[in-house]
Formats: sequence, structure tokens, C-alpha cells
Amino acid sequence: MILEHADLRIDPTRAADFEAAIERGVTTAIAPAQGFQGYKVNRSQETPGRYVLMIYWATLEDHTVGFRQSPAFTEWRGIVGPYFLQPPVVEHFELVCKSA
Amino acid sequence: MILEHADLRIDPTRAADFEAAIERGVTTAIAPAQGFQGYKVNRSQETPGRYVLMIYWATLEDHTVGFRQSPAFTEWRGIVGPYFLQPPVVEHFELVCKSA
Repeated sequence: MILEHADLRIDPTRAADFEAAIERGVTTAIAPAQGFQGYKVNRSQETPGRYVLMIYWATLEDHTVGFRQSPAFTEWRGIVGPYFLQPPVVEHFELVCKSA
Repeated sequence: MILEHADLRIDPTRAADFEAAIERGVTTAIAPAQGFQGYKVNRSQETPGRYVLMIYWATLEDHTVGFRQSPAFTEWRGIVGPYFLQPPVVEHFELVCKSA
């Protein structure tokens, strides 16, 4: 399993609208994708307008190829893209260890 | 519940030693702290030496006061601090939404 970790920056005065949009965007455009295994949206306490979106995929290619090269990616960006103040910073992570 | 999100940078040639150290550090120095509710260590696929440590706390103060002002914080930094190439970038996050 792979973690997609996306660091997002939006105008904090639009937080409520953005939070509704990102939930809708994930559930309608991303969740149906092959290999999607779950997600979380987190809001920073220290930096207004900073969010970390975490999406779990079965494989890296489920995200980078299957999803990003599908029409669903365009749909997703249409929903949340207008809120981004800068391009999302996205990296993929492997789990090293966690609590029992 | 609060997510402590720590962005860590180490020398990637020391990854194996660091991964053993951070697991030991969390389990021995952080896990016994009041309010600790779990953790994950994630390794970036794109940026060698980048890790994201996620720790769940019952409250913000369990981390910022209870843990950081205890001798366990010094113990923790003694275990993992020597690996850090730069100070960890730590922020706290609240969950906005997640998969059902």
C-alpha cells in the first residue's frame, strides 16, 4: 500500500467551501478509482489554509497512471483546483513502522 | 484527537539505522506519554532521506506541554536527533473528513 501525501494551500477565508469541495471531490472523483483504499483530509492548526490530503492506494501506478491519466483526474481538479493558491506538493510514501 | 505531523530530513545513506532508531525512540520515549494514541513512520519514495512521522495525541497539550516539557522529550531527541540534517518541521492537524 502506498500513501499519496498532498500538501495543499488555499485562501483560509474560503476554508468552509473548500472543505465541502474536497470531501465531494474525493468521494465522487477519486474513491471510485481502481486501487483507492481510503483517505483523510487534515487541517493545520498553525498555518491557516494549509491542508494535508492523504490517500491510500494499492500501488503507486494506481495513482500516477490509473487515476491521473483518467478523466476522473480532470473532474477532481475541476472541483478543488480553483481553491489552490499554489500547485499541490505531492509525494508518495511507504510505511516504515506503526503502532501495534 | 490531534495529529502531530513532523517532516524529517536525514542522510539517506543512514536510512536503515535511522529507521531502527525512530521505531525505538517512539516506542520507548513517546508511546508511554499521556495522551499518546498511535503513530506511523512513512518514507518518501521521491525524496531520499525524507520521512513523515505522524503521531496521534488526545489533545494538543499532551504533545506540546505534557510530552515536550518532560524528560522523555530529551530522551527522544537523544535517540533520533543525531540523524536530522535540519530541524524537524512540526505542525498539528485536525481531521476534517475521512473515508467511511
